[in-house]
Amino acid sequence: MHTKPRDACGIVGIYNLEDAARHAVLGLHALQHRGQESAGVVTALDGKLHCHKGMGLVANVFPGGSPAEGADRLPGTTAIGHVRYSTAGGSNLVNAQPLIAGYMDSEVALGHNGNLCQSQTLRAQLASHGALFQTSTDSELVLHLLAQHQAKTPEEIARVLALLGPAFSLVMLYPLPLPGRLIAARDPWGFRPLVLGELKRPGKSVAMVVASETCALDQIEAEYVREIEPGEMVIIDHAGLRSIRFAQAQTPLWRCLLEHIYFARPDSLVFGETPHLVRERCGEALAKEQPVAADIVVPIPDSGFSAAMGYARAINIPLERGLIRNHYVGRSFIAPGQHARAMAVRMKHNIVREVVEGKRIVLVDDSLIRGTTTATLAQSLRKAGAKEVHLRIACPPTRHPCAYGVDFPDRDELIAHNRSVDEIRHLLELDSLGYLSEQGLLRLFGQNAADFCTACWSGCNPKLEP
Amino acid sequence: MHTKPRDACGIVGIYNLEDAARHAVLGLHALQHRGQESAGVVTALDGKLHCHKGMGLVANVFPGGSPAEGADRLPGTTAIGHVRYSTAGGSNLVNAQPLIAGYMDSEVALGHNGNLCQSQTLRAQLASHGALFQTSTDSELVLHLLAQHQAKTPEEIARVLALLGPAFSLVMLYPLPLPGRLIAARDPWGFRPLVLGELKRPGKSVAMVVASETCALDQIEAEYVREIEPGEMVIIDHAGLRSIRFAQAQTPLWRCLLEHIYFARPDSLVFGETPHLVRERCGEALAKEQPVAADIVVPIPDSGFSAAMGYARAINIPLERGLIRNHYVGRSFIAPGQHARAMAVRMKHNIVREVVEGKRIVLVDDSLIRGTTTATLAQSLRKAGAKEVHLRIACPPTRHPCAYGVDFPDRDELIAHNRSVDEIRHLLELDSLGYLSEQGLLRLFGQNAADFCTACWSGCNPKLEP
Amino acid sequence: MHTKPRDACGIVGIYNLEDAARHAVLGLHALQHRGQESAGVVTALDGKLHCHKGMGLVANVFPGGSPAEGADRLPGTTAIGHVRYSTAGGSNLVNAQPLIAGYMDSEVALGHNGNLCQSQTLRAQLASHGALFQTSTDSELVLHLLAQHQAKTPEEIARVLALLGPAFSLVMLYPLPLPGRLIAARDPWGFRPLVLGELKRPGKSVAMVVASETCALDQIEAEYVREIEPGEMVIIDHAGLRSIRFAQAQTPLWRCLLEHIYFARPDSLVFGETPHLVRERCGEALAKEQPVAADIVVPIPDSGFSAAMGYARAINIPLERGLIRNHYVGRSFIAPGQHARAMAVRMKHNIVREVVEGKRIVLVDDSLIRGTTTATLAQSLRKAGAKEVHLRIACPPTRHPCAYGVDFPDRDELIAHNRSVDEIRHLLELDSLGYLSEQGLLRLFGQNAADFCTACWSGCNPKLEP
Amino acid sequence: MHTKPRDACGIVGIYNLEDAARHAVLGLHALQHRGQESAGVVTALDGKLHCHKGMGLVANVFPGGSPAEGADRLPGTTAIGHVRYSTAGGSNLVNAQPLIAGYMDSEVALGHNGNLCQSQTLRAQLASHGALFQTSTDSELVLHLLAQHQAKTPEEIARVLALLGPAFSLVMLYPLPLPGRLIAARDPWGFRPLVLGELKRPGKSVAMVVASETCALDQIEAEYVREIEPGEMVIIDHAGLRSIRFAQAQTPLWRCLLEHIYFARPDSLVFGETPHLVRERCGEALAKEQPVAADIVVPIPDSGFSAAMGYARAINIPLERGLIRNHYVGRSFIAPGQHARAMAVRMKHNIVREVVEGKRIVLVDDSLIRGTTTATLAQSLRKAGAKEVHLRIACPPTRHPCAYGVDFPDRDELIAHNRSVDEIRHLLELDSLGYLSEQGLLRLFGQNAADFCTACWSGCNPKLEP
Repeated sequence: MHTKPRDACGIVGIYNLEDAARHAVLGLHALQHRGQESAGVVTALDGKLHCHKGMGLVANVFPGGSPAEGADRLPGTTAIGHVRYSTAGGSNLVNAQPLIAGYMDSEVALGHNGNLCQSQTLRAQLASHGALFQTSTDSELVLHLLAQHQAKTPEEIARVLALLGPAFSLVMLYPLPLPGRLIAARDPWGFRPLVLGELKRPGKSVAMVVASETCALDQIEAEYVREIEPGEMVIIDHAGLRSIRFAQAQTPLWRCLLEHIYFARPDSLVFGETPHLVRERCGEALAKEQPVAADIVVPIPDSGFSAAMGYARAINIPLERGLIRNHYVGRSFIAPGQHARAMAVRMKHNIVREVVEGKRIVLVDDSLIRGTTTATLAQSLRKAGAKEVHLRIACPPTRHPCAYGVDFPDRDELIAHNRSVDEIRHLLELDSLGYLSEQGLLRLFGQNAADFCTACWSGCNPKLEP
Repeated sequence: MHTKPRDACGIVGIYNLEDAARHAVLGLHALQHRGQESAGVVTALDGKLHCHKGMGLVANVFPGGSPAEGADRLPGTTAIGHVRYSTAGGSNLVNAQPLIAGYMDSEVALGHNGNLCQSQTLRAQLASHGALFQTSTDSELVLHLLAQHQAKTPEEIARVLALLGPAFSLVMLYPLPLPGRLIAARDPWGFRPLVLGELKRPGKSVAMVVASETCALDQIEAEYVREIEPGEMVIIDHAGLRSIRFAQAQTPLWRCLLEHIYFARPDSLVFGETPHLVRERCGEALAKEQPVAADIVVPIPDSGFSAAMGYARAINIPLERGLIRNHYVGRSFIAPGQHARAMAVRMKHNIVREVVEGKRIVLVDDSLIRGTTTATLAQSLRKAGAKEVHLRIACPPTRHPCAYGVDFPDRDELIAHNRSVDEIRHLLELDSLGYLSEQGLLRLFGQNAADFCTACWSGCNPKLEP
Repeated sequence: MHTKPRDACGIVGIYNLEDAARHAVLGLHALQHRGQESAGVVTALDGKLHCHKGMGLVANVFPGGSPAEGADRLPGTTAIGHVRYSTAGGSNLVNAQPLIAGYMDSEVALGHNGNLCQSQTLRAQLASHGALFQTSTDSELVLHLLAQHQAKTPEEIARVLALLGPAFSLVMLYPLPLPGRLIAARDPWGFRPLVLGELKRPGKSVAMVVASETCALDQIEAEYVREIEPGEMVIIDHAGLRSIRFAQAQTPLWRCLLEHIYFARPDSLVFGETPHLVRERCGEALAKEQPVAADIVVPIPDSGFSAAMGYARAINIPLERGLIRNHYVGRSFIAPGQHARAMAVRMKHNIVREVVEGKRIVLVDDSLIRGTTTATLAQSLRKAGAKEVHLRIACPPTRHPCAYGVDFPDRDELIAHNRSVDEIRHLLELDSLGYLSEQGLLRLFGQNAADFCTACWSGCNPKLEP
Repeated sequence: MHTKPRDACGIVGIYNLEDAARHAVLGLHALQHRGQESAGVVTALDGKLHCHKGMGLVANVFPGGSPAEGADRLPGTTAIGHVRYSTAGGSNLVNAQPLIAGYMDSEVALGHNGNLCQSQTLRAQLASHGALFQTSTDSELVLHLLAQHQAKTPEEIARVLALLGPAFSLVMLYPLPLPGRLIAARDPWGFRPLVLGELKRPGKSVAMVVASETCALDQIEAEYVREIEPGEMVIIDHAGLRSIRFAQAQTPLWRCLLEHIYFARPDSLVFGETPHLVRERCGEALAKEQPVAADIVVPIPDSGFSAAMGYARAINIPLERGLIRNHYVGRSFIAPGQHARAMAVRMKHNIVREVVEGKRIVLVDDSLIRGTTTATLAQSLRKAGAKEVHLRIACPPTRHPCAYGVDFPDRDELIAHNRSVDEIRHLLELDSLGYLSEQGLLRLFGQNAADFCTACWSGCNPKLEP
């Protein structure tokens, strides 16, 4: 009950689309990069909710696009879905979402992306009123508050959302009024993305879709309409689409910059921009701030690819595939013998020896978190004959865990926590190491620069603490 | 959320026994006849609860005696376990027990046998206070009441138990004080059985065991000490065993007579008597009330065996194995073709043709609920050459569903509901049909006769409704 | 490759029945007692064979009556099926039957019940001709001989069967001529049972069924026609049913008496008699040979039931249910702690204390193989208060492993090997022990007495060795 | 028995390495791209073989690096392993490799990469000698020939290999002499790669490794020693490493060019060169042969990446990530509704709209087989706003299935079969289409150009047919 997992997840909602569950599953496939721990879909039909969720990838939980047993177990034209980020300890089916619960006469399902940073206060307050907690998620708190406030109408629900604080993007599904009511909402700081789309087909009434990223819209050929606004709650039901402002959008916003840096899919539209292009620009800016005399630029695949392209172009050094990623690699490899275990850490990336041999290499990645994989790579590159290994990171040093829903390791496992750049360089045995500066990064966003949270670099968020 | 499954289940609790989880699993094996839908065990160690549960038989959920993955996932010397009866609709992992929840600073696990017949009132009252329901079980209500009343000490918990009404036998496990606190309680009417045992081994301090039936004690060689009394709550922790009366035992009690008739295992000690012997006496009494001129007595295996022995002995007709049960048969057989499907209903029982051919047969069973299997059997016996088929049932006609926790079908599916004995005889195409009378049955219990619930025969419980 | 598992199995064949696979599965359900290690079905359609087999019970390999994935994977109106006995070491999917193989242009599937006692000679001879062995079963030898002799026509196949020696009952399925050719054959000694049945339905042409026991016919309402004769091969195809004598029936036959004693289902018709009645007569004969002054007769359930009924009746002592069997018990229970492991051996049988307390008990079982379970039971009965424990076994001492297909333990694990009756009595701590004598047993079969194999008692088969 | 699957697979062999099975599994992980249908490992210990194989990816068959049940089931210091290519119809556990069989007194395990193009002749000849076929693989033929010729000594085995014809690279494992004998061999034409490596560790005797590609050596830090030569058989046992020439290497060789074009991993060393660099050079040559006026070069990820880099560089147009691949996508998505099904084909690749919008695009891939995915991509690019879509393929048109072990679709499913380049362009709705010419491709290999098989482009192999 006490380990609080970070909920960096993906959510999707479908309204007025036959076979809604399968479309939700398709959307979750597109959002799979946002969470691989568990997947779930809830549909509404005839005043009842239907649920299937399980541990693992979408393809495992929904083989062939539906539950393994009983393809027809998720009927209806309204659905919400959720994928959950893999966390170390609290991996548990009871925490898988969407959560379903009942209060008053009502059932509701909830899918939540984000982390309630006031969860301790909220939990204590709820506990003192006799609340019974059955999961270890923040998301359950939202349901408890709805129950405590007996919130049923959109207006009542809006009043509860106003109490939550940062950070959430969420979808909710009520089975009534028929054929179900889909609610989507985003916190006033706009931490996590959430977009609205529609699917028009000849001879059919329009279907509505909400999703964490536009790639989920693309997957089912829904057209992007707009973002759900910070502080906005959208209600979609038989009466159409309605919007309620449960709180004024904060000025400035605190959009999560990591969505652009590495979290969102490169082809999505996030906060109005395409991550792939943002990352390329980061690479270019990095090249200007941290140039190096080298023979080739080598991306750490797949994460460093966009930034490396920008870097190589800006500094006019050829981009080369010196590392190949093995996409078949499973999660864990447990070997008692020492040699077999040592070899297993090398399963993910492979070196193209002839590319790197005798070369001065600039290794480019989007970020540097723990640094363990990168250390192994740098070492392997040298063994394969690289003359110099320079590492360039297309964002500032990640020094602090995220309180708003990105699943970072503990403070002490962050390689940049309490270490200078030179200390890190030394630790990783690099010839040089360069990060993109915070100013350099923010400058790329022009007048929107103020609207981003930078707490994982600067350590505190002056905007939040009064 | 709205289908209320009947909770006729089995529970077990272990205190101060190394490898507590495996002993709990052994106990659940012995109680498997009380519930085949799901199985679960929770242990306490170092102030935390550890849980594993799953759908299906104990042997499937705990292959080899422990969770399939991670045999060491249930550490500790304190454990509770639960098996749940297979119900038609609400079969769902979320309803599997023990339930785990948190309130205030505390975790608790609960295993419950019985049905709270005031659940609607309790649920409505809890809902009006903002309770959030995450299962469709009555058992969750107990946890909600504990949370609502912030009950932590045994005395506070006792006050909550006093609110529940009929019917419950339950075990609870708190992780603190170390090494865990085991609580066992039984409603003041004494509906469901619950016994206390102890396990003494040379050189070790005594271990305590609670269980639905003594057969679970026998399984792990624990000695029977006594029943948990109606209205009693037993607390077992580092301070030893304590007993609190949370309510006075009702006079008379409402022990469930079906425990003796068919629910409990024949070799258990239930309410102070052995079901096998009770069933034999029922058969004897039935023979006196409903004799018949026949050639052989044939039990419907395995349920009718004890009663048939009593019947045959009393009437002095030879007992013969005319029917053999196939114990390997799985639950369901789905065949599209009509012939294959028709054949599948015959999988459970097989007729020994040479035994029954040309004979006048008295078929004996412990009870008659839906009557569908019995109808098939009677028909098959005739096809196999039986000259006459007489059916004798060793209890009164079951006319009403149970409100206290036995998983009966709906009223309309009970063959005796709104039908006279002769109508049933006609429907089943029998030469004669006889039931043991309610008086005849109760007479067998002598002065304890008043201490039984007979609501499933008489339809209402005059003791309950004022 | 070298461990030769004993093949005491069950086989079934279906011809001209829509949904043949599901009917075969139903038949295998009825034969489940003959083998729990693996199950498999092969069908023929359009000149091709279709196969599904797996480890475990029929209900696991064919949940709902068909393969778990792809219920339509076994099309056609012709099918054979097989269940295999659980053996200690060689449990392996590669040995599961029916075996499928190709030779010349032909595919064939084979299901075999029995053990080729000349397998070493046959194997050596085949090996010297370059045969490649891919399983460790005797059954593969039959296929190799067919291939080596290029046997395709029924006459050619018959010539190969004549080479096999004891012991086999088998079914074969060829996909051609359409809609498939079903072959059933039985060795000239008649070791294992094999029966022929037919299924007549109005408006449809008759379907043919072969099976190890009649209970498989009963299961699908096929009528018993006759035994497949020793030395007979039956061919069922589009041309109807034909019979070939591939060898003269031996005089006398060597029918396996253990089929009657404990292997076959009590309600089957085996070698023209009903095992339940044979076992009752054994019990009666045992009572006359080995009477005892006692208070109650207690069968070891379920195996000793029929014999105990006969014993009790003959000696006029009441039959009582002093032991209850727990039918839910899974195969194995692995516990590291000593107490939990010790308790696990007690999972299968439970004692009804009030029945046995203070009583002189005659425990009756059909046979005594290893003696370990019986030893535990005797001990437990004493602990539960039994005054005396007398054991009566309704067959002679089993002193020798079977060479013809019954899965016995090794010689040294047979409690009666190299031990006198009194030594066994002492070992099991019994007050007395009595076996039915070989003469007493054979006398029950009248003029058929000579037609049984008694090698597991006498140790050698004088009829076989010249 | 009659569908002959194409065996384009990966093989590995380990000698004298503790925990050999886990190292074999690691090697198979590195070779996973060569086969995803099944995986298997066989080890030798104490004169016996131990086997585990299953359907699916290495990570599924060997979770954590060992069999799911019984991590210790593959003991020994000698092992061979195999991954098998996913084929449409014949996907079946019985065909999974390594195959194990027995002949004479010997067991042997075989892993085979390639296709015996004389299999029909060999099979007919074996059949006429009475061979019994239990799989539908060519690989079984090798075992049958060994059995037929009673080949036991390396010299005898070599004589059998000389009979096989093209194409094979194989590993065999005999349990004797202790601690096992590892054999690796390659056909005289050298179709499939096979390399030898060694693993030196301080204080330990050297371990030997054979594998389809060097990436498997890299994975376990074994050093590349040399290729197994065409016509060579290498024997590794307690006597050390010996080499036998079972046939003279053909002049010229027929190395499979597709290994370089798309089959082998980019970082491997194949036939002495690095596929990534070969592919880059193909892209460069393609640019010279088939230039186009365009704005950006977009690789089809991941297959077209290396070639696109070469193409972009040669023609000096920027390489852009216009397509993103979703690596989480499972195999199949079955949806009854039309819209959901239509959307599912779009799961694998995603378009970065802002990159492609308004652009003239050169799409580059390594090859074009069926063309269905490419057609969808081209269409989607246009929908996303691409002004022109030009396709460039870095190899000649694939017009013919492969007889030597690459798993191609049937002739009629090859888009280039019986179609001119312009017809294909029209079918795919492209603005232009260009292939690398056969001469252009071969020229890249200089004096080795003659040593490649080009049958899938030219349709016949004049070298083979006399």
